[in-house]
Amino acid sequence: MALSKNIKLVEVGLRDGLQNEKVILSVAQKVELGKRLISAGVQRIETGAFVRYDKIPQMQGTDEVLTQLYNWNKKAHYSVLVPNERGMLEALKYKPSEVAVFAGCSESFSQRNINCSIEESFERFKPVFALAKKNKIKVRGYLSMCFGCPFEGDVSEKVVVDMAYRLYKMGAFEVSVGDTIGVAHVGQVQSIFRKLKKKIPTKALAGHFHDTRGQALANILAAYNEGIYIFDSSIGGLGGCPYAPAATGNVATEDVLYMFQKMGVKTGIDLKKILAIAPWLKQQMGKDLPSKVGNVGLLRPQPIL
Amino acid sequence: MALSKNIKLVEVGLRDGLQNEKVILSVAQKVELGKRLISAGVQRIETGAFVRYDKIPQMQGTDEVLTQLYNWNKKAHYSVLVPNERGMLEALKYKPSEVAVFAGCSESFSQRNINCSIEESFERFKPVFALAKKNKIKVRGYLSMCFGCPFEGDVSEKVVVDMAYRLYKMGAFEVSVGDTIGVAHVGQVQSIFRKLKKKIPTKALAGHFHDTRGQALANILAAYNEGIYIFDSSIGGLGGCPYAPAATGNVATEDVLYMFQKMGVKTGIDLKKILAIAPWLKQQMGKDLPSKVGNVGLLRPQPIL
Repeated sequence: MALSKNIKLVEVGLRDGLQNEKVILSVAQKVELGKRLISAGVQRIETGAFVRYDKIPQMQGTDEVLTQLYNWNKKAHYSVLVPNERGMLEALKYKPSEVAVFAGCSESFSQRNINCSIEESFERFKPVFALAKKNKIKVRGYLSMCFGCPFEGDVSEKVVVDMAYRLYKMGAFEVSVGDTIGVAHVGQVQSIFRKLKKKIPTKALAGHFHDTRGQALANILAAYNEGIYIFDSSIGGLGGCPYAPAATGNVATEDVLYMFQKMGVKTGIDLKKILAIAPWLKQQMGKDLPSKVGNVGLLRPQPIL
Repeated sequence: MALSKNIKLVEVGLRDGLQNEKVILSVAQKVELGKRLISAGVQRIETGAFVRYDKIPQMQGTDEVLTQLYNWNKKAHYSVLVPNERGMLEALKYKPSEVAVFAGCSESFSQRNINCSIEESFERFKPVFALAKKNKIKVRGYLSMCFGCPFEGDVSEKVVVDMAYRLYKMGAFEVSVGDTIGVAHVGQVQSIFRKLKKKIPTKALAGHFHDTRGQALANILAAYNEGIYIFDSSIGGLGGCPYAPAATGNVATEDVLYMFQKMGVKTGIDLKKILAIAPWLKQQMGKDLPSKVGNVGLLRPQPIL
């Protein structure tokens, strides 16, 4: 199997990243972050979520972020998360080119996180897909807890594959297979993507890895070696994890770019420009960010004294 | 190519790890760490270095650490670093089963680190190899800065391969190819090990990766996929890096074990027992350690409230 010479990164820092951070950025800050990312070459960017802002205040102003970024650059591909029909109706006012829905792969997580069973979560998607089709909007499907659940432990590969296929058949152009708590092993990644590829074309599969246990890059490499070439990442590694003080959230965009840089794999993104965002972003967040490449930078030979 | 069902880890925390830490452990603490590691299944362990203790005080007491561990468990495989004939003569008093020599792959680093040219460093090895042969002691060869040098930038792959082959021909049973400043990319790792394999059998090649830019596990996976199955790692990720406050040193033993655990790859080491060392080691070092798996632990399902 020839591996892809290109990968596509979906920048999720403004949504999955920020929604897990304590610091709440203003609309102006989020728009500025979006502009810096797009200027560095990011083509696909999640800009926020149409959710209940009393529950997730970090997502407040998603409408304005989306509108301002779209008016600034109409070529980039913007997405927003919509949990249900209500969110979708809100999203429709701003005509994003893409929306995203999400489901958890364990019943316990689904109940705890979105207050419904897995079956009910698919029921909620139906009107979203119908409205999306009518309005020619692409739908991305997120599956979370695909490699393990904090409440149930192991998650069945069959459940994940069935749910991914179901989302795909409902009309999702892409299914993002998520290791939400950063527990996946390389062996699991190989196993599950091999099963997924049998039912869903690789162009419709994405990998979404958190770096909680430092495994994200190895898992991305394992998925890439299975023919997967779409990955979610978050600038600076935004998205702190509640399980440990120093733990990271999403895998950092900088670290993923660094890995692929010398493999002859193109991303369309300028790593140096991405690295230039870190000092500014640290200031906005008022804290250090977990991206290791972001903190250390590229190899810069030192003069010999 | 069928990949190995076993990997061998060389625990370097007591040497490469501790020598880069500010905190200096006592002989008793180092012996205790060694005992805990061996009890968890570690078979190969670097116990210290016969160097100038006025320059590297962290290595003081290497003789006692080696002796006490050997008297406690004669089955584990102990190694000590010897920079030259003087160190080797010191080591001979304690009859380790293995010693290690090291050379830097850039002239600037060699001059700065060991005050001699690359050619002179090989001259220094000659009496070490001669004494080792006479006393039936195995010699491991370390090459540092194989993927980039802080003073010169890029390092020639040809230089690395030639130096590795030279060490091997001199009698090194194993050559550890080191990314001392954590700058290696997956593409580089593939490229250099493919060249190395043409001249040196894989059973005599080891990978030594630092996690400064978060790439270590992906690089280990890439090397494993090239047929390499001996890797150096450091408990807790000991070995702070001078380039950034939060940067790690050697890749953490815990993180490597976690990755290989579900790939059906055996290590002979019990991850749970290794993880039990972390809280104690944190206390001894008086600081948090960088191992992500060490900090977060394994997946432990939470009760649903």
